[in-house]
Amino acid sequence: LVLCCLTSAASVPDPRQREALIQLESSMQTGGQMVLTDAEQELDARFFKMKQDETARAAFPPAMHFFRARDLIRRSPIFSLLQKMPKGGALHVHDFSMVDVDWLVMNATYRPHCYMCCTDNRSVRFIFSSQRPKPRPRCSPWTLLEELRAKMINSTDLDNSIKRNLTLFTEQDPEGAYPSQDVVWDRFEQTFGAVWGLVTYAPVFRDYFYQGLSQFYQDNVMYLELRALLPEVYELDGSAHDRAWTLKTYRDVTELFRNQHPDFFGARIIFTVNRGVNLSVMTEVVEEAMKLRRSFPDTLAGFDLVGREDSGRPLWYFREALSLPAERGIELPFFFHAGETDLEGTDVDQNLLDALLLNTSRIGHGFALVRHPVAKDLSRKRGVAVEVCPVSNQVLKLVKDLRNHPAAALMSENHPLVISSDDPALFGASGLSYDFYEAFVGLGGIKSNIASLKQLAINSFRFSSLSPKQKIEALVLWQRRWNKFVSENV
Amino acid sequence: LVLCCLTSAASVPDPRQREALIQLESSMQTGGQMVLTDAEQELDARFFKMKQDETARAAFPPAMHFFRARDLIRRSPIFSLLQKMPKGGALHVHDFSMVDVDWLVMNATYRPHCYMCCTDNRSVRFIFSSQRPKPRPRCSPWTLLEELRAKMINSTDLDNSIKRNLTLFTEQDPEGAYPSQDVVWDRFEQTFGAVWGLVTYAPVFRDYFYQGLSQFYQDNVMYLELRALLPEVYELDGSAHDRAWTLKTYRDVTELFRNQHPDFFGARIIFTVNRGVNLSVMTEVVEEAMKLRRSFPDTLAGFDLVGREDSGRPLWYFREALSLPAERGIELPFFFHAGETDLEGTDVDQNLLDALLLNTSRIGHGFALVRHPVAKDLSRKRGVAVEVCPVSNQVLKLVKDLRNHPAAALMSENHPLVISSDDPALFGASGLSYDFYEAFVGLGGIKSNIASLKQLAINSFRFSSLSPKQKIEALVLWQRRWNKFVSENV
Ligand SMILES: [Zn+2]
Ligand SMILES: [Zn+2]
Repeated sequence: LVLCCLTSAASVPDPRQREALIQLESSMQTGGQMVLTDAEQELDARFFKMKQDETARAAFPPAMHFFRARDLIRRSPIFSLLQKMPKGGALHVHDFSMVDVDWLVMNATYRPHCYMCCTDNRSVRFIFSSQRPKPRPRCSPWTLLEELRAKMINSTDLDNSIKRNLTLFTEQDPEGAYPSQDVVWDRFEQTFGAVWGLVTYAPVFRDYFYQGLSQFYQDNVMYLELRALLPEVYELDGSAHDRAWTLKTYRDVTELFRNQHPDFFGARIIFTVNRGVNLSVMTEVVEEAMKLRRSFPDTLAGFDLVGREDSGRPLWYFREALSLPAERGIELPFFFHAGETDLEGTDVDQNLLDALLLNTSRIGHGFALVRHPVAKDLSRKRGVAVEVCPVSNQVLKLVKDLRNHPAAALMSENHPLVISSDDPALFGASGLSYDFYEAFVGLGGIKSNIASLKQLAINSFRFSSLSPKQKIEALVLWQRRWNKFVSENV
Repeated sequence: LVLCCLTSAASVPDPRQREALIQLESSMQTGGQMVLTDAEQELDARFFKMKQDETARAAFPPAMHFFRARDLIRRSPIFSLLQKMPKGGALHVHDFSMVDVDWLVMNATYRPHCYMCCTDNRSVRFIFSSQRPKPRPRCSPWTLLEELRAKMINSTDLDNSIKRNLTLFTEQDPEGAYPSQDVVWDRFEQTFGAVWGLVTYAPVFRDYFYQGLSQFYQDNVMYLELRALLPEVYELDGSAHDRAWTLKTYRDVTELFRNQHPDFFGARIIFTVNRGVNLSVMTEVVEEAMKLRRSFPDTLAGFDLVGREDSGRPLWYFREALSLPAERGIELPFFFHAGETDLEGTDVDQNLLDALLLNTSRIGHGFALVRHPVAKDLSRKRGVAVEVCPVSNQVLKLVKDLRNHPAAALMSENHPLVISSDDPALFGASGLSYDFYEAFVGLGGIKSNIASLKQLAINSFRFSSLSPKQKIEALVLWQRRWNKFVSENV
């Protein structure tokens, strides 16, 4: 309506019309349609003031590499508020990067029977074993950590050096340490390999997940959808559990955690497989996913492919396997990573459209979505939300200055999206608050406000895999905590 | 239509539907509606092959800082073809950055009576004078360059050091040399100050513009719209010419050049003033612009404000002055720089909307447009083209990897836009081909093709300030050269 009033003849601009257009634009952004209470408006004024201060400073965290920005963010009063804020659910988090590395080193590696070896390419591997394990190819002889530490006066240096192998985070110049996407992805995979032997040991596996839930809970996240590889989890004697056991363990630990924290809503699992596998393996895995979905309908939310898109196989390569559930009329929701790439126009770049054609429920990252108008339109019209992970995209070198993150444009037009943290431990982050900070201050700019935050939290339920009834329950629980947060911070 | 066929029920994707959607998306991009001749399709296949090769290499120029990428680009076969390609018009180029610094040093500074001094902040200033000029505050005593050079066995080092003062380009690490937007803008302004005394000397002024036209012409650009400050141009005795003289000189030199190069279409001037002035100065300048427009209707295309948006006054501050032409019913087209900023949500960030409310004919840069859905919609519906200058935006640190440039999204949906080079000499570029390379390879990705290039060239006339009749003439002239280019390169 307002747009029609603009004549194209030369004219003196009318300040009221200008104000109306500014309001119109503001109403189009994430949260732009939200009606705020008086208390919320008061808190918004606080946020606005803080954001102005933060923007005026020379060092603007969202424009800096997260490794450099982290300390600044920790000192930011906006960040403190965001930590306290009930953020709803985290819908894009991976199984073995939930818990900070301090816990892994100080808790997991201090358990008895923990062996470590050093690989040829300067990473480490772990195994728990009642007997001395067989030598690992391209790795030094196994060292029993309790023996090694016993010989040392102080094991701080050892612990720190182990920590450095379990995360990408570094105090050094991040541009120097990770000059390219290839280098950072290579380290990403090495780090993942280092964590593997620790977290797939049954006692650690259980405690790690419990600790992961705790850390998200402490960050005021009340619901989680976890991308999980469901690996074979092993015991001290070398015996291994199957996927159903792993999935059941997730369910049981979640139940235990919920019993102890009644305002935590729960966690669901998105079963993932590496996109490096071939078509026949994928077919088997999809078969198994359908089976698991039938056995654990409340726990298993759906299916996804993981690993670097640029070097993996595109979704279309797997179309036959991925079409099996539809062909058989079996419901297996998909939550595909897609468009986590700069390679515009390549086969990999078709993943976005293919994810939508395969009827994905959400899109992981969707970094390339703004360059795909048809996919973007489908995502919007069908309400297929984009899971935006700003810190991840920056650390993995898709974008340097987060003000240039494509989701800034998506937020300005209230595209369906949620904020998540992908692999917080690997990036030196934790929970969800760092990513909320980057989204609120960097992607949203001065314009985004408390209504945007509220909308993002609500989106995290709306676009979750929960049933309509569960969504309402979760929203009721969240609203109570939100009101408390607002009243305590105005 | 195709979109309607997509049911939201789980289904096996149909390869034909997929192909149709890919085609649909491809038809939406810049040039997507263009029908190609057989020869054009043949040349397109060459371009596609070259682009695949270029994309496969480890060092991908659009992802690198232009100062590092320049040599790679020069060796690129795509670049060679783009140089030969008739690119149409360059619609966003500034007066004193048209000509490479080699010419400035080897031609301008070698003329008699050229004095130089060194400023406190490590820049230089020049003046031509028949008498020894008065000392300049915060500058060393004036040195007569012919005397200085006469004392030297070899003046190469001197010349090189002068060159370094006349451009931002450096062989050093560009991130180290220009760590922030503030630093690079400061050097930008210093460099501009250094060039000033050379190019505002009447004999150099004329030759510089002629040389500028030559360099664009050699780069197969046939039309120019030049943002020009129309300064007082001085003579050796210190006397100065007024703005009308300066504008007349542009007109006369253009006429001379056209007579000598009949396939060059011409140049028009967009009168610019620095946005640092106050409202009363702006009012006077707008008055003068209206007068000049009446006196030189064929030469003066319109009016604009220049200088860094972030530190200057927003358009809205000048609304009274900028409304004068409309109030008086006098036609003074505007070509406002707007949205050349990262500061989302600030007063400066309103420039985009205000430029449109003030009825701008085009938008200079519009870097922030994708974050302003209302402004974006207005720009599209009214056909207000965005002047995209990729190299400039990268050197001035708005974006690091040009694949993340917001115009990549704009090109994917055929938003009205043209490619230009802003200040090529300051960035170590020349003409228009470097920016075409970045747009074609970086912004466009694998998807953009010869139709995109053709569309961009046609856009440069379509969105120019030329009259409808002139546009047709220019397009006829261009089409002839285009056909020749295609037939010579298949
Ligand atoms: Zn992920
Ligand atoms: Zn400019």
